[in-house]
Amino acid sequence: MKAFYHKSLWTLFLILLPYLGWSQGEHPNLVLTAKGVEDLRTNLGKYPLLDKTFNKVKTRVLQALDEEINIPIPKDPGGGYTHEVHKQNYKKMYEAGLLYQIEQNDAYAEYVKKQLLGYAAMYPSLGLHPERKSSNPGVLFWQGLNDSVWLVYVSQAYDCVYDYLTKKERKEIEKNLFRPIVKFFSEQNVVNFDKVHNHGTWMVAGVGMISYVMGDEEMVQKTLKGSKLDGQSGFLKQLDELFSPDGYYTEGPYYQRYALMPFILYAHTLSHRNPELGIYEYRNGVLPKAVEAVLQLSYTNGRFFPINDALKEKTYNTAELVYGVDIAFTHFGQDAGLLSIAEEQGELMLGEEGVAVAKAIAEGKAKPFNYRSLELSDGSEGKNGGLGILRDGDQKDQLCLLMKYSSSGMGHGHFDKLSFSLYDKGVEVLQDYGAVRFLNTVQKQGGRYLPENKTWAKQTVSHNTVVVDAQSNYKGKQKVADKLNSEMFFTVFEDPKVQIISALDTTAYEGVKMQRTMAMISKGEHQKPWIIDLFRVNAEEEHQYDLPFYYMGHKIDSNIPFKIHSNQWNTMGDDHGYQHLWNMAEGNAASHLASFTWLQNERFYTLTSVANTETKYFMTQLGANDPEVNLRKDSGFMIRQPKAKAHTFLSVIEAHGEFNPNAEYTVNSESQLKDLKLLADTEEGSVVMLEDNSSQRWVLMIANQDAAKESKHTVTANGKTYEWVGPYQLQEMTSEL
Amino acid sequence: MKAFYHKSLWTLFLILLPYLGWSQGEHPNLVLTAKGVEDLRTNLGKYPLLDKTFNKVKTRVLQALDEEINIPIPKDPGGGYTHEVHKQNYKKMYEAGLLYQIEQNDAYAEYVKKQLLGYAAMYPSLGLHPERKSSNPGVLFWQGLNDSVWLVYVSQAYDCVYDYLTKKERKEIEKNLFRPIVKFFSEQNVVNFDKVHNHGTWMVAGVGMISYVMGDEEMVQKTLKGSKLDGQSGFLKQLDELFSPDGYYTEGPYYQRYALMPFILYAHTLSHRNPELGIYEYRNGVLPKAVEAVLQLSYTNGRFFPINDALKEKTYNTAELVYGVDIAFTHFGQDAGLLSIAEEQGELMLGEEGVAVAKAIAEGKAKPFNYRSLELSDGSEGKNGGLGILRDGDQKDQLCLLMKYSSSGMGHGHFDKLSFSLYDKGVEVLQDYGAVRFLNTVQKQGGRYLPENKTWAKQTVSHNTVVVDAQSNYKGKQKVADKLNSEMFFTVFEDPKVQIISALDTTAYEGVKMQRTMAMISKGEHQKPWIIDLFRVNAEEEHQYDLPFYYMGHKIDSNIPFKIHSNQWNTMGDDHGYQHLWNMAEGNAASHLASFTWLQNERFYTLTSVANTETKYFMTQLGANDPEVNLRKDSGFMIRQPKAKAHTFLSVIEAHGEFNPNAEYTVNSESQLKDLKLLADTEEGSVVMLEDNSSQRWVLMIANQDAAKESKHTVTANGKTYEWVGPYQLQEMTSEL
Repeated sequence: MKAFYHKSLWTLFLILLPYLGWSQGEHPNLVLTAKGVEDLRTNLGKYPLLDKTFNKVKTRVLQALDEEINIPIPKDPGGGYTHEVHKQNYKKMYEAGLLYQIEQNDAYAEYVKKQLLGYAAMYPSLGLHPERKSSNPGVLFWQGLNDSVWLVYVSQAYDCVYDYLTKKERKEIEKNLFRPIVKFFSEQNVVNFDKVHNHGTWMVAGVGMISYVMGDEEMVQKTLKGSKLDGQSGFLKQLDELFSPDGYYTEGPYYQRYALMPFILYAHTLSHRNPELGIYEYRNGVLPKAVEAVLQLSYTNGRFFPINDALKEKTYNTAELVYGVDIAFTHFGQDAGLLSIAEEQGELMLGEEGVAVAKAIAEGKAKPFNYRSLELSDGSEGKNGGLGILRDGDQKDQLCLLMKYSSSGMGHGHFDKLSFSLYDKGVEVLQDYGAVRFLNTVQKQGGRYLPENKTWAKQTVSHNTVVVDAQSNYKGKQKVADKLNSEMFFTVFEDPKVQIISALDTTAYEGVKMQRTMAMISKGEHQKPWIIDLFRVNAEEEHQYDLPFYYMGHKIDSNIPFKIHSNQWNTMGDDHGYQHLWNMAEGNAASHLASFTWLQNERFYTLTSVANTETKYFMTQLGANDPEVNLRKDSGFMIRQPKAKAHTFLSVIEAHGEFNPNAEYTVNSESQLKDLKLLADTEEGSVVMLEDNSSQRWVLMIANQDAAKESKHTVTANGKTYEWVGPYQLQEMTSEL
Repeated sequence: MKAFYHKSLWTLFLILLPYLGWSQGEHPNLVLTAKGVEDLRTNLGKYPLLDKTFNKVKTRVLQALDEEINIPIPKDPGGGYTHEVHKQNYKKMYEAGLLYQIEQNDAYAEYVKKQLLGYAAMYPSLGLHPERKSSNPGVLFWQGLNDSVWLVYVSQAYDCVYDYLTKKERKEIEKNLFRPIVKFFSEQNVVNFDKVHNHGTWMVAGVGMISYVMGDEEMVQKTLKGSKLDGQSGFLKQLDELFSPDGYYTEGPYYQRYALMPFILYAHTLSHRNPELGIYEYRNGVLPKAVEAVLQLSYTNGRFFPINDALKEKTYNTAELVYGVDIAFTHFGQDAGLLSIAEEQGELMLGEEGVAVAKAIAEGKAKPFNYRSLELSDGSEGKNGGLGILRDGDQKDQLCLLMKYSSSGMGHGHFDKLSFSLYDKGVEVLQDYGAVRFLNTVQKQGGRYLPENKTWAKQTVSHNTVVVDAQSNYKGKQKVADKLNSEMFFTVFEDPKVQIISALDTTAYEGVKMQRTMAMISKGEHQKPWIIDLFRVNAEEEHQYDLPFYYMGHKIDSNIPFKIHSNQWNTMGDDHGYQHLWNMAEGNAASHLASFTWLQNERFYTLTSVANTETKYFMTQLGANDPEVNLRKDSGFMIRQPKAKAHTFLSVIEAHGEFNPNAEYTVNSESQLKDLKLLADTEEGSVVMLEDNSSQRWVLMIANQDAAKESKHTVTANGKTYEWVGPYQLQEMTSEL
């Protein structure tokens, strides 16, 4: 109701907008403003990071000024010669424009002018790009996306030299270059202009920015409300739909980082040109939330969680996020944690915000970024599940668990319902594979997603989650997956004794209900919490349930009497990703607890799970049926319940001890877990007991059906009754129950 | 002749030594001296690293003072309770003694006194340790080695509190503790006392140091010249035989680091008590050379080259080398490169030398350690082959090649004749496996060397060198290996265009002569040199020759049409290490050049080798027949010449390009090598031609039989004659030959 009220007001405002006065004459006034120019001029030489950024830009521009201007007829696809030249050109124009504003040296403006006139001379003669992609054709580039990015940069360059140019020059440039481009986007390519999609955002941002420079108010309105001015598309609709209310972008952080850039650049322009719009407050501040969200979606090493298609090396030290971080610091509350990220980025945006960040850093205000436990809902209404993140410890040594119960994430999504990843001591411990791709590497299919991305990385078995009947979620059908999602059940972030994420899914496998509850139980100061993983599966029919864990280290020990395949390895299956797994070893547990210890990054980890006589265990290695050796040779540990209607996987993961090969000592290489039991497990609730070697016991009771705060739960098993109120209760004790 | 003369003088000197006056009364005067105490007192609070070290020591000592003194009856073997307690006790006494000297607080001296009196009360009642090792039994510990180490520390503690103790207390301690220990070592355990072996060094060092404190001149003489005072054993003989003239210790750097400690501590004591001995000048300064050698035997990441049995994580940041580095800086020429190592070590020896180092660091004198290309001969006469190291580039990004053509290295040696390892950009690129061992890890056989150390790590096929008939050097017989070694042929370090190591072996395989020449050819500034690997094998009979390369990255490309084993893996053989290798893929080359490119640490590497129609190629992965998963799953690339009397493997290794997943670009992912040819290859000499993509050519001529500087060589092949003088000649050209 509140949201609706909010929206109506907005609609009214937008109708009135064209009739409100708006500043037009001043240049530059898109992302960079007169104040920014003034701040830069007066503060250069004062702050190291500012000078470093400035000097890098100036070095590049001076180099460009030494070269012949080169504007080739568009011909090559992505990565090809003309493609790269036009990419370089927009960056050179943009940076030369900035420099002109700062130093007022005509040579820079002349450079931009010559480029612009060169493009203006060529553009009218061009048709669609010969290598165009049908879905979003370009003129200068093979895809319209690149033309849009070009426009975002070049409109800023034009803005910077606007006052330097003669009226005649401006007329020529606008008539032969910018107006045709705007026309191409808003008429010929209106399908993409009106698309509520990241490509649409780049397009309306570019068109909007150049329209501000040219004083085309009507076109600005179209970028905000769609070509039909009906609010069914355009920038505001994109803001409405592409982010969840928590600022999460459904494709995941790897793509969110990229998608954020046009949003931030255009929003920042709007904040200068139409401050009445209050764009940063729009949808309860969804853009500031999106910047915070993408940063929270990284681990302490700066790497984004590599869910969905993602290169796992990617960090927040990326050009796209420099704008987001600097603007967020300056305008969204001076969060000192952003300064340490700016320091790591090692560059600033040249403008008011970069100056503010450089100054604050020089004043020693930087603090570690405030990573916290949180949930991010998915879907424009926040109703399509989400991601839950639990964290314990500071930046130096943080245990961090990410659980995914969101929607599929569109074309780059993976079949990974209720999967999780675990991080510790600066690195991945239980991994999400990421994408199978060697970005930009010619020999690996030119850097494209490789076939194994589909046959392995997207498949359910490549994730740390349950696979039913050795098939992927939705039988691996993307179109089905796109429409369905898991659901949040409850989260607990504020209890110093325990943090919990509980989520469920009824969509991934027909007739199968899955519910996963993951908890971090505090073991007290100076100790890593223990992780409880309670994965309940219920079906009407009998199924095989597999639960793999992809650990990153070296196996040290196990109490499972594995039969090792010493002389010959065969695969774990024929499809759904199983064809890529070698079966290294298999065995049944020797007792009611099966433990598996590995060593990684000089720390030990033990996964202990409750076993019954049917439970089978496998050790796997990745790399079968991989003719081009595109896959890493990662290790896996798989728990299999061969035949059951209902089954509950209960495991505890411990980080323990230290292997110090340099100082030559090893401590606590063995698990501290003495016992682990599922005391009760009904539709109403589950009761888990764990005990450590010092006879400390924890009993965790979890509601399975009703997570309301005030609901009372009573569960009886083996003659004992457990009662609690609310979604969970934790009891600690040292003696018998 | 010169050496002989030198030795005679020494013998004369040693005979006279007992009759020369020597200072005795002053305490402390072993490693720590009155000057050291004075330096420490006046400089604490001035230099950060000194204060850091001091505070760490003081914290530990204060903690010890808070605890009950605990001197248990010796009972447990290594790692057990009484073992660990007695180890802790000697460290606590030692550090409390140091602190007493610095702060003159009686509480510290009291602590040492109580410990010493406690040991004196117990020692006379002890027999040999119940868990003793027969070869070197101990009393306080299971092996005499530990008793020796105990004595080295405790004699220093006693020296520090000597003047604090009453005459009666000293008498009691000496009579019941130190004299019995000395007697035990020098009489009952005289076999080890007189051993020219690292264990003997610890023993004579301990006995010598306590004898200095007690004023037992005769016993000091025995530690120097052996129990019979005939110079056939003792410290000086150990210095004669355990190091090569270049300061190399035959077991390799991992053990050299440990072996150096008693040498340094006792030599330093001698330098104070018998400066006339000139111990640091002994054998042309072999001890200073040994300190430099062990540091040169590390890569820029501080890790020692893991030849022979070695944990590859081990760096020079280890307590043993703190003494060596600080003493070397202070007394062997103030090498500023040692200061940066001291900084990384993060602690100092508390004495004159630590103060000097701390002061120099605080004055900003530290420079990067001067890594250089060099050869280290092996054997006491320097005639048992050696190690050659080629380096290019500074510490930030250094290409480094180590070639091993030494003797076997005794019990910890590997069958690795003419093997090499390659490092680049801070990490291993072509690896030596190191040892199969998880140090101190209970679950891995208590941290011992594991079975696969023998079946894999020691075997020839686990190294980057030729394996004849799929058998290890010397058929894997250690006793044979112990007596034989490879030979240096020639080295070139000073030519700016090329660096070379050439070595040969006629001992590893009966009737087979192997000769390997490795060269780094300069490609000019800002480019990594290319590495030429010319491996000639000659035999009278036909053999199979395998040459494996263990690369550390991910395969990117190859022009070899490999048949990949997709669904099933089998092993490469049944023994000599082959049983541990999975055969991933095999194939014959498609052209006269076979290339293989991998990606590691965001850089590409290509190995290109000359092939003929017989040459076979394999991709391997380690881990077969490994029931406890003790091995890493490392990758290998193997070249096989199935049947030949003579064969020459010619390869070029390139480091090239950059994969930057964060900034999202990749450059030069493909090899720049256009052609590679073996133009001539005779007993007299070999001629190698390589050409890069810009048609730059290099012709390298190498002598195979006579490496004399003035020798003329003429080699004719395919109607062309190549002539040069000396062991090598390099020609650079851009046109045809």
